[in-house]
Amino acid sequence: MMLIVGELINASRKTVGEAIKEQRTQTIQDLAQSQCDKGAHFIDVNAGLSIEKEAEYLKWLVKIVQQKVDAPCCIDSPNPSAIETALSIHKGTAMINSITLEKDRFDKMIPLIAGTDLKIVALCIDDQGMPETSDQRFHIAEKLVNALVQKNIPLENIYVDPLVQPVSTNIQYGMACLDAIERIMQSMKGCHTICGLSNISYGLPVRKLLNRTFVSMAITKGLDAVIIDPMDTLMTSTVTAALTLSARDDFCMNYIKAYRAGGLS
Amino acid sequence: MMLIVGELINASRKTVGEAIKEQRTQTIQDLAQSQCDKGAHFIDVNAGLSIEKEAEYLKWLVKIVQQKVDAPCCIDSPNPSAIETALSIHKGTAMINSITLEKDRFDKMIPLIAGTDLKIVALCIDDQGMPETSDQRFHIAEKLVNALVQKNIPLENIYVDPLVQPVSTNIQYGMACLDAIERIMQSMKGCHTICGLSNISYGLPVRKLLNRTFVSMAITKGLDAVIIDPMDTLMTSTVTAALTLSARDDFCMNYIKAYRAGGLS
Repeated sequence: MMLIVGELINASRKTVGEAIKEQRTQTIQDLAQSQCDKGAHFIDVNAGLSIEKEAEYLKWLVKIVQQKVDAPCCIDSPNPSAIETALSIHKGTAMINSITLEKDRFDKMIPLIAGTDLKIVALCIDDQGMPETSDQRFHIAEKLVNALVQKNIPLENIYVDPLVQPVSTNIQYGMACLDAIERIMQSMKGCHTICGLSNISYGLPVRKLLNRTFVSMAITKGLDAVIIDPMDTLMTSTVTAALTLSARDDFCMNYIKAYRAGGLS
Repeated sequence: MMLIVGELINASRKTVGEAIKEQRTQTIQDLAQSQCDKGAHFIDVNAGLSIEKEAEYLKWLVKIVQQKVDAPCCIDSPNPSAIETALSIHKGTAMINSITLEKDRFDKMIPLIAGTDLKIVALCIDDQGMPETSDQRFHIAEKLVNALVQKNIPLENIYVDPLVQPVSTNIQYGMACLDAIERIMQSMKGCHTICGLSNISYGLPVRKLLNRTFVSMAITKGLDAVIIDPMDTLMTSTVTAALTLSARDDFCMNYIKAYRAGGLS
């Protein structure tokens, strides 16, 4: 099983940012619907336009997305109080994107998530900042997962994001992330890994090529959740193919099903 | 460094089989030239049409390919005497595809390759037949590489092909091959791995999608040589991207160079 989070409703995308500011319900709902039609299990909602209005906007996004589609939201904010506001009207079991090991953020997030069934993206950042190596990623992951489990968050609801950084900045960042995925999946059985992929290609041309190639490499290492554009057929085809090739598709049935639905290219 | 063998001059492809029978020089030479233009380091030549004429056809292929392009050939046959005939007129350092651990084939091939600088594809098959698991592949690889080294074939001239079999037959075959690549690259430092990829997708639709996705997964595991169609831009783009993402491209220079040459999609 590969969990797919549709990434398109993100205020950092120009058309979406404007639609949020102008409260254009239709634009947002169409994006939610088309992502669900293409197989998204969660709809990411990000309203990071301004600190003052983030909570209000995020709540509005959750409301209108859930008016339109049955899928739960992935509530995407570094701000615990905006997440709390958005959660207050969310129906079903949301995903929270994200908690980190930064003490202040961690302490404020825990009361919202402890004892719930929420799915939690655990991003490998601590108060020392961004990890560089695979080792650093893995050690933050271990500490963060242990801390969450101690707060009664079930391991199977935790999605570790090893932190994807651009290979244009440091050519080692791709392998550092891939190795971390492998170590996390091997040593913390039951928990999940997830990647917001697009950072990998920051600063380089033909970004979609790098993003989808990186997905197949990450699936080789055990990745079982992705934040992607479900409308990008080459991307979703790559995910489907990589799952088949990594033996996560009995008798190639999902691959053949996707083919029959016209979804492979 | 990724060594690229262009696979198109293969008698099992209908147009090529016919061109060989009819001795159409131009058709073959055009295929050689276009593959070199797209970055092939070796031109595979396969004349497996009939046992009687294979040696003669293979020799003809080597001759006309080398009349046209500077690249050496990858002489592709299970038949040692056909290889010997083709080698007799080959200029430069050829690649031989392939030797196996089958006693008869091994014993007949060794006199042709011992003490030479030829590059040797060592295919993981022994007298027990095709391997099923990663373990079986690895153990054949170990025996075969040791046997070749004992015959004075330098480790750095050996390209182990772990044997790609269709996931449509057994969903585990993809991972078995990938794991074998990783183990070979980690435990026999200096030798290489190579895959003839297209078997992976046998029996399934949209085969090019599976082939190129499998390449990126194999590169994640350390694969450093491929037998591909260099005219398939999505395939070559995937190879370029996977090398960058696996830190085999200092400062992303090859990726950017390929982009500037219009070669990425």
